[in-house]
Amino acid sequence: MDPSEFRRSGHALVEWIADYLSGSEEYPVLPRVAPGDVRAALPERAPEAGEPFEAIFDDFERVLVPALTHWNHPGFFAYFPATTSASGVLAEFLSAALNQNAMLWRTSPAATELEEVSLGWLRALLGLPDDFEGVIYDTASISSLHALAAARQAAVPHVREQGLAARSDLRPMRIYCSEQAHSSIDKAVLTLGFGHASLRKIPVDASFNMRADALRNALDEDTRNGVTPVAVVATVGTTSTTGIDPVAAIADLCVDRGIWLHVDAAYAGVTAMLPECRQYFSGWERADSIVVNPHKWLFTPFDLSAFYCRRMNVVREAFSVVPDYLKTAEGNAGVRNLMDTGIQLGRRFRALKLWMILRHFGAERLRDILREHIRLAQQFAADVDDHPDFERLAPAPFATVCFRANPRGIALTAPELERLNERVLDRVNASGEVFLSHTRLNGAFAIRISIGHLRTSGVHTARAWQLLVEHTAALAAAR
Amino acid sequence: MDPSEFRRSGHALVEWIADYLSGSEEYPVLPRVAPGDVRAALPERAPEAGEPFEAIFDDFERVLVPALTHWNHPGFFAYFPATTSASGVLAEFLSAALNQNAMLWRTSPAATELEEVSLGWLRALLGLPDDFEGVIYDTASISSLHALAAARQAAVPHVREQGLAARSDLRPMRIYCSEQAHSSIDKAVLTLGFGHASLRKIPVDASFNMRADALRNALDEDTRNGVTPVAVVATVGTTSTTGIDPVAAIADLCVDRGIWLHVDAAYAGVTAMLPECRQYFSGWERADSIVVNPHKWLFTPFDLSAFYCRRMNVVREAFSVVPDYLKTAEGNAGVRNLMDTGIQLGRRFRALKLWMILRHFGAERLRDILREHIRLAQQFAADVDDHPDFERLAPAPFATVCFRANPRGIALTAPELERLNERVLDRVNASGEVFLSHTRLNGAFAIRISIGHLRTSGVHTARAWQLLVEHTAALAAAR
Repeated sequence: MDPSEFRRSGHALVEWIADYLSGSEEYPVLPRVAPGDVRAALPERAPEAGEPFEAIFDDFERVLVPALTHWNHPGFFAYFPATTSASGVLAEFLSAALNQNAMLWRTSPAATELEEVSLGWLRALLGLPDDFEGVIYDTASISSLHALAAARQAAVPHVREQGLAARSDLRPMRIYCSEQAHSSIDKAVLTLGFGHASLRKIPVDASFNMRADALRNALDEDTRNGVTPVAVVATVGTTSTTGIDPVAAIADLCVDRGIWLHVDAAYAGVTAMLPECRQYFSGWERADSIVVNPHKWLFTPFDLSAFYCRRMNVVREAFSVVPDYLKTAEGNAGVRNLMDTGIQLGRRFRALKLWMILRHFGAERLRDILREHIRLAQQFAADVDDHPDFERLAPAPFATVCFRANPRGIALTAPELERLNERVLDRVNASGEVFLSHTRLNGAFAIRISIGHLRTSGVHTARAWQLLVEHTAALAAAR
Repeated sequence: MDPSEFRRSGHALVEWIADYLSGSEEYPVLPRVAPGDVRAALPERAPEAGEPFEAIFDDFERVLVPALTHWNHPGFFAYFPATTSASGVLAEFLSAALNQNAMLWRTSPAATELEEVSLGWLRALLGLPDDFEGVIYDTASISSLHALAAARQAAVPHVREQGLAARSDLRPMRIYCSEQAHSSIDKAVLTLGFGHASLRKIPVDASFNMRADALRNALDEDTRNGVTPVAVVATVGTTSTTGIDPVAAIADLCVDRGIWLHVDAAYAGVTAMLPECRQYFSGWERADSIVVNPHKWLFTPFDLSAFYCRRMNVVREAFSVVPDYLKTAEGNAGVRNLMDTGIQLGRRFRALKLWMILRHFGAERLRDILREHIRLAQQFAADVDDHPDFERLAPAPFATVCFRANPRGIALTAPELERLNERVLDRVNASGEVFLSHTRLNGAFAIRISIGHLRTSGVHTARAWQLLVEHTAALAAAR
């Protein structure tokens, strides 16, 4: 592309993106396409001759935009809303142009050291002690995989050389998390070769938080039976209900017994920036490793997962492999080469966006936005609690509320109630104005609203509530 | 950021990036900073109050730009040059703004289906049959990790549930690759819990290609000794010398014995687009899985690794975990949800850049650029071969040449020769005009030049050669 085409196309994109970021509300949150529509609209083969960027962009607008799920829509309340921000978008633009690969200090001193600086800033904002060394991975899935790999290495040092299968004297190993832990913990256990049966899911209390007494009993029982407890994963902000495992009590158990404690705070971790939320994290400073995802609720474009570890040397023991062609004088002199703490050799310049976002917003404004999201969720929870046709299904400590419609005066069987709620959710989502998701709690279907978008205001949450009330009333009346 | 600040900052960035992409030659390839310089230039804490983007960008230029290693410099000849392109940069800009997370079809029909379409285009360009299903991962490290995890699942189906350690009747398992295979294979073996000792490195021939006879002997020996061969990794384009393992002969062995064959073509795979290079890939159509990295030599910004697999169902068996909160009607109806084929749940919209790059360049121009890089490397190799003070240390089938200075008329011991070459390389790199890296071949230090940058021309390779010749002559004369 000659520079003039780049300038022309780039400036046009700036205008389009500016409109999109401030006007994403004009699109339906969920696209109105059927499976296969995009595929059918595109040719089967790449073109032989190049095409001008404008022509490609026309197809982008014609074929792809109508098939986007608008994560940037202020009515996106599904899963955990992951919202981008203007400073993050600009940082990614720059990062793509610079194309740094920070595998070695030498291959990008800027990216290597900015990763340390920006993770240091975030660590201080979260109130974590300085002995937590940080590294940026792509996703919480990969962060937790590294945590459990390090736990394996710490528990069974011969595993690096001999693996899990070689020694017949090896005691069975087990990993612990609550029934509400994220599926990425399951996947990490599968990947590492522990086997799914090695993941013991600890029951939760009525608030969907791990029961520390049940964990203690499980550890005692397994130890009596010759099992080696390798790691406990405590979650602060579980995916379904944003439940809060009792980290301090769990840390007591882990520290006493020398078990690796990993805290999955991928979602809620950023709220440790708020003094009023700090209580939920009590004890995490004693964890061995922690994951917090700025790409979830800190307005950072996908992907950026912050992994903090007090025993990063164990991660290095587990993963460092330095072939001849990657040896450098600086590495021999003790400079940190980020490839040593990761499975992935290639690493893009993710620290740039975190640094730009922290500076552009400033800590005070970030705290204000998080507080406002929590306030909106508390208001929503109160609306649910106050309405006779709805019931809340879980505590809502952060900005996510689980609830269901249960209209007064109509006796519904459990399957009927479930079907009603599915239909309410489908109709609300079909509006295109909002997108909520669901989960299942104690077997019951729950509607789930999560508030985390930079541009979401009380107008949007009120509209979501109004749609829920109206569709519930209509469906109840039609019975 | 209000829209007007975004527009202003965005337009300024377009201009800066346009200048950077066409003018990166004005920077030294390797920055002239010492470890700690960047860190020392930045505050220890994030600001409480937000700052305008312009102020942040000033610091970017003042502190970070002097500490960048310019992967975009046409004199970047180290490792494998990974070059971005204007269309790729624009695509990433857009992708950051859209912030799609294509974990489910529902969470981004556009990203889900464009991934299928663009990988289908690439598959056809590479001449691979349609029964290779594709998925985009971040890096070849993760692609090969999935390949070996699938191999493990295929060889030991109970591994998902019971893991590697549970059954005392489990035969020892082994993975095979050549001595020249990439360190990511070692890391995948470590991650998966096989243990490093389970990776058997097969000797190479004088051209640094795996010896198929040695592989056969190793498989025979291990099988006799009760070992289960789980997977063979064949590399087309090894990292040190771009050696080419005999894929067809290796495929014969693997197909006969039912062993998973993974082809690591992360670097050289794109040359399968050239009819004259297709011979090197003979037999890869019989592989179980293949990795090709567009972010290496197809002008795609980090990161984008294309993973093709003829048995993607095994990947799903190994990794699919679908919690209640991620169940969708479309998933039940058989639509592909990309989270099912990966460790990572979060997935950014990487297909967009591949699609835009393939269209903007067109297949013909991509082939022309690859051909030109190969031609420049062949010219460089001929220069080495023709010069009495230099010697080539490996064949150069693609665009990478390994060689060393060995000045005529001076009798040097092996350590002296090594020290001389290290000094030549250091001086050449200190020029700031080029950046070459090194490797070690049969114990000897080798200088390594790899040509793959979009803007590299014969002027740049000639200058690299001139610097090498001059510094070698000067150092030889000073003895």
